[in-house]
Amino acid sequence: MTTKSTNITWHGADVTQEERQNILGQKGAVVWLTGLSASGKSTIARRAEQLLLERGVTVYVLDGDNIRFGLNKDLGFSPADRTENIRRIGEVAKLFADACTITLTAFISPYRADRDRVREIMPAGTFVECYVNASVELCEQRDPKGLYKKARAGQIPEFTGISAPYEAPAAAELELVTGDLSVDQAAMAIIDYLVKNGFIKA
Amino acid sequence: MTTKSTNITWHGADVTQEERQNILGQKGAVVWLTGLSASGKSTIARRAEQLLLERGVTVYVLDGDNIRFGLNKDLGFSPADRTENIRRIGEVAKLFADACTITLTAFISPYRADRDRVREIMPAGTFVECYVNASVELCEQRDPKGLYKKARAGQIPEFTGISAPYEAPAAAELELVTGDLSVDQAAMAIIDYLVKNGFIKA
Repeated sequence: MTTKSTNITWHGADVTQEERQNILGQKGAVVWLTGLSASGKSTIARRAEQLLLERGVTVYVLDGDNIRFGLNKDLGFSPADRTENIRRIGEVAKLFADACTITLTAFISPYRADRDRVREIMPAGTFVECYVNASVELCEQRDPKGLYKKARAGQIPEFTGISAPYEAPAAAELELVTGDLSVDQAAMAIIDYLVKNGFIKA
Repeated sequence: MTTKSTNITWHGADVTQEERQNILGQKGAVVWLTGLSASGKSTIARRAEQLLLERGVTVYVLDGDNIRFGLNKDLGFSPADRTENIRRIGEVAKLFADACTITLTAFISPYRADRDRVREIMPAGTFVECYVNASVELCEQRDPKGLYKKARAGQIPEFTGISAPYEAPAAAELELVTGDLSVDQAAMAIIDYLVKNGFIKA
C-alpha cells in the first residue's frame, strides 16, 4: 500500500526539462545536417563533436556508421524504407535532445517532407536544419568513396544528385557552403549558433 | 583538394570512447529493468534518474511513455512486433550508452532471448540486467492502471503473467525484490552498482 501511493507521488514528480537543463548546464537540440553525398556532413558533424566535447558539452553524432548497421539494419533503400529511415532517426534524435544532449545528425535526407516531419515532432526552436551546401560537381570531384563514379556507371540506382532528386532546404537555420569554408569554420558556425541561441554556454 | 585531404585526416581522428569518458567523467551503461507490469520498473527508473541527476550524472530513461508513441508507434503487440520493439529499444539504448549516458530502460521485456540479444550487441560489461522481482499476486494487488483486472476479464489478450509467459532472468546483474525494498532503496541499489563498477563517480 505504501509502495503504491509512493509510486503515484513519484510519477508526479518526474524530472522536468527545466530541471534537467539547469543541472546539466545545456539544452538539447538536434542539428540536422542535410546535403549531398560527399558534401561534408559527417566530417563537419564529427569535428563539431570534438570541439563541443572539448568544452565539456554532452554531444552525440548520429550518422550512417551507427544507424544503418544497428537500429535501421532492417531497412533498404526503397522510397518507403528511406522515409522510415529518416522517421526513426528523427525519433531517436528527439530522445537524445530530450536528454539535453546536443545531437548532430548527418544523413543525406534529400526529401523536404521527411525533414519537415522531424521538425514537427521536435519542441519549437530545437530543430536546427543545417544545409551542407556543395554542388554536385564539387561532390563528384571529391567522391571519397567512389560512389559518384559508380552512380554515373549505373551501378547505384537512385543516387541522390545523379539519378534521384535532392530537395534543398527552403529556410534552413544554417547554411554551410563547404566549397568556401574549412571544416573548422563550418563546425564553428554550428557552435556559434548553439551559443547564440542559448543551447550551450559561450 | 585541401578540403578532401583534411576530411580524411579528421575521419581518422574521431573521438574515442576513452576520450569521451574522460571528458564527461562517466561511462555509458544500459541498466535494463525487466519485470511484470506494475512490478515497479518505471518508478524505480525515474527515481534513480532523479538521484543520478542530483549528482550531475547525464542519465536518461527509456520507457513506454517516450518509445511507444514515438519510435515504435508503428508496432503492435504481435510476437514479431514485440521482438522488434525490444530490438529497437536495445539499439537506441546502445547509442545512448555510446554517448556515455547512463541509460535506464523500463519495459516488461518478458522473453529471455530478446534481452540476451540486447546484451550481445552491447560492449562487454555495459549491459546491466536488472530483474524487478514482484510476484503476480503483488502486482495484481497494486494494479495501478487496472490492467490485471482487464486481463482477468479476458479484455487484454496475451497479458504477461496472466495469459502470456514471463521468463525471469537466470543471472541478472541486479535483482530488486520490490515487495521488500522501498523505491529509494531499489534506486540506490542501482546507483551503488554503477559506482562499484566504475560507471559513475562515488
